[in-house]
Amino acid sequence: MTAEIEQAEEQREDAFSKWYIDTVLRAELADYTPVRGSMVIRPYGYSIWESIQQFVDRELKATGHQNAYFPLFIPLSFIQKEAEHVEGFAPQLAVVTHGGGEKLTEELVVRPTSETIIYDMLRKWVGSYRDLPVLLNQWANVVRWEIRTRPFLRTLEFLWQEGHTAHATDAEADAEALLIVELYTRLIEEHLAIPVLPGMKTESEKFAGGDHTYTLESLMRDGKALQMGTSHNLGQNFSKAFGVTFLDRTGKEEYPWSTSWAVTTRLIGAIVMVHGDAKGLRLPPRVAPIQVVIVPIWKNDEERSRVEGLVGEVQSALAGAGLRVHTDWRDNVRPGFKFNDWELKGVPVRLEIGPRDAENRSVVAARRDTGAKDTIAADQVTDAIRNLLDNVQRGLLKEAREYLAAHTSTADSWDAVERLLIDPGGFVWVNWCDSKACEEKLAGLKATVRAIPLKVEERPPTGPCVCCGEEAQFRVVVARSY
Amino acid sequence: MTAEIEQAEEQREDAFSKWYIDTVLRAELADYTPVRGSMVIRPYGYSIWESIQQFVDRELKATGHQNAYFPLFIPLSFIQKEAEHVEGFAPQLAVVTHGGGEKLTEELVVRPTSETIIYDMLRKWVGSYRDLPVLLNQWANVVRWEIRTRPFLRTLEFLWQEGHTAHATDAEADAEALLIVELYTRLIEEHLAIPVLPGMKTESEKFAGGDHTYTLESLMRDGKALQMGTSHNLGQNFSKAFGVTFLDRTGKEEYPWSTSWAVTTRLIGAIVMVHGDAKGLRLPPRVAPIQVVIVPIWKNDEERSRVEGLVGEVQSALAGAGLRVHTDWRDNVRPGFKFNDWELKGVPVRLEIGPRDAENRSVVAARRDTGAKDTIAADQVTDAIRNLLDNVQRGLLKEAREYLAAHTSTADSWDAVERLLIDPGGFVWVNWCDSKACEEKLAGLKATVRAIPLKVEERPPTGPCVCCGEEAQFRVVVARSY
Repeated sequence: MTAEIEQAEEQREDAFSKWYIDTVLRAELADYTPVRGSMVIRPYGYSIWESIQQFVDRELKATGHQNAYFPLFIPLSFIQKEAEHVEGFAPQLAVVTHGGGEKLTEELVVRPTSETIIYDMLRKWVGSYRDLPVLLNQWANVVRWEIRTRPFLRTLEFLWQEGHTAHATDAEADAEALLIVELYTRLIEEHLAIPVLPGMKTESEKFAGGDHTYTLESLMRDGKALQMGTSHNLGQNFSKAFGVTFLDRTGKEEYPWSTSWAVTTRLIGAIVMVHGDAKGLRLPPRVAPIQVVIVPIWKNDEERSRVEGLVGEVQSALAGAGLRVHTDWRDNVRPGFKFNDWELKGVPVRLEIGPRDAENRSVVAARRDTGAKDTIAADQVTDAIRNLLDNVQRGLLKEAREYLAAHTSTADSWDAVERLLIDPGGFVWVNWCDSKACEEKLAGLKATVRAIPLKVEERPPTGPCVCCGEEAQFRVVVARSY
Repeated sequence: MTAEIEQAEEQREDAFSKWYIDTVLRAELADYTPVRGSMVIRPYGYSIWESIQQFVDRELKATGHQNAYFPLFIPLSFIQKEAEHVEGFAPQLAVVTHGGGEKLTEELVVRPTSETIIYDMLRKWVGSYRDLPVLLNQWANVVRWEIRTRPFLRTLEFLWQEGHTAHATDAEADAEALLIVELYTRLIEEHLAIPVLPGMKTESEKFAGGDHTYTLESLMRDGKALQMGTSHNLGQNFSKAFGVTFLDRTGKEEYPWSTSWAVTTRLIGAIVMVHGDAKGLRLPPRVAPIQVVIVPIWKNDEERSRVEGLVGEVQSALAGAGLRVHTDWRDNVRPGFKFNDWELKGVPVRLEIGPRDAENRSVVAARRDTGAKDTIAADQVTDAIRNLLDNVQRGLLKEAREYLAAHTSTADSWDAVERLLIDPGGFVWVNWCDSKACEEKLAGLKATVRAIPLKVEERPPTGPCVCCGEEAQFRVVVARSY
């Protein structure tokens, strides 16, 4: 990279980063707090999280998972029991040294993840194959002491669900980890309208303490990848570290095979970065806190009284149909201000109702994604809006898919990798030897291996490693990332 | 109190306490963890919490409240800004001194409650009367460093919802605090089937930093009171401490009036202590994770094949009607064991289906609360079970009301207070002067003023203070408590 290109890149990055933070703050998704690296998730942002929670919680329960709650504090010695685990998490720990005015005899760690405390409990609860599988999930906050933070994407504290399961066989555990990949794929594609690439992580990128990690990677509008969720096959590592055993059907003592998996409030950041535009958010209808905003147009009390009837009628009809609808009756700002405000907040459909509309019993509907406007007869408003919302949902996914396609390329030389990572940016497919040395060289381009394809038939390499020229293990996707 | 009575009291207390912990552990509501004072809420217990959450969350949203999420960590200096607040909470704080391997320049407190961080944010968000009311709620974990802990009732970490609202007038704030008392009353009486006494706390029992505290007090089966929830009118205390101001309609700068309120996982402990019996839990149908358990009865494969059809049919019919139903097909334990197991777990209705029942197309239904058994025609099972569940719900509330009535008395002398607190125990109404000295004397009887009546017409005293003989301020309820 020449210094010039590097500088241009940095400027582009800064501009995107500024736009992102600006949008998050102005749309009132989140706010900075006096606690470095911690954010407040404001009601508008939290409502998106609740919609993600509802989908995931329903799907998890339908597949036999149960929610539970494990302690926030974990004895420091627990974290140290799994060698890779402590190496991965030690630098990120927040430590409680004092409680109730006294110095603690054993320091407590604020959970960065809950494997250790959960496996310590499973030792008590699991004794026989009849106790398996254990299918647990927890909605919780976790803390990782990050140096460079950014609202939603990387914060000191974040919210997530963490699933933890234990099984009688390795095959069952792997099937569970893959079931979750499929569930997360549906969440991300169908609800967040974001295309996603499922895959496997390399050794150096996998979860600290796991056997292998499945990942879901999406592409943001600045050409960088974002890890949207992970599902880990932990093998017998934690069972062994915590002495969890069970008697199998033949009466043999065995260690269970386990998994863990999570999605976090980071997904809200992904929605902003994939769908947002210069005007602000563009929210997929399925997760939008407000799906339809009605903006009544009036100049004086007489006009106001003429629109009130139809506005109330439309509001009731849409709310009655189960849609999330809000009427903006503010009298201290003009309609133009309201239009901008709701565009900033990404409401999928805006309805304008003025005196003439009231007379004609019609409303003007504007789509946030395309800006297209249409007139709808008041009597057909429910069906028409349902259709429109479906179209917005599909439209956003289609647009994001087109962006992804335009930012996915194949490199057959190191020069090409370097060039393609900048233009067009995004995902670059390469043949890969899977050596530490090549991953380090890739880091010099500020990129990482994001995923080995999930589908085995997509893995075979088509030539030597793009980095060292030695025999390749598989094709992988490399990208710059968050 | 003579030493003899005291000893008898202690034995009774110990027995109840042992029964409580035993029931909580054996019914798999919760478990102890290696972290002193912290518990695991197991799936069966967590499911009760989810049912409480659903009711509260729905009611809060219906009354205009919005969920948000504020940071777990609070700078120590924030807690110190409100003089009474720090005095109340300082002894209970867990303190993070190290993060990411380094000593922090300002120590962070793990939130014991979130007023301070929320008011610091409101200073940014509130500027005009148009920004009010602010109606926030948060589902979160909090930490209070308790010395003597007991699962659900008092734990180092617990789960709760904490509501925080800010208003343009004192009257509005008080109306909000009372709205919440009404909401909690419905939760506790209608869903948990526990009668509740709403009231006000005395100065010494109110929330640290508030103006006055509304409380909801219930009576456990050992004659002790449990505070089920609180709703605080905070006046302008936190607004002033954190410099939150707004311009009112006349353009005058003013401090908002605010409230905060909470219910916690403690309510699960109350359900155990109010409804439980020697066999274990008795769960009100509205919060029971499993409302109906089907126990198929068979001796051999031939019999099993004869019951399978009807069992599946009944399971489908009940699940299809939206009831939470589970069929216990375990083949390694006998029906008698299953009966005991589901009684321990407090499932409101058990259905037994054996070969003869299958032939007659009928089922035997047993109520957990009364033990009554009845035969139901399979074709009417849905309506019949719905009715039965309603009856169990009402029956448990009625029984608890009768216990409360039998354990509520009036004392007109100090001797009577002392006697009635032991026999029958429970709530003792007295005339009260509201002095610190008398509260201290009451503490000598291991009792406290639980509530000043919420209804003003119930407050007027009928004689002098039962403790000092001076003029009484009001009638109050005193009791021993958790």
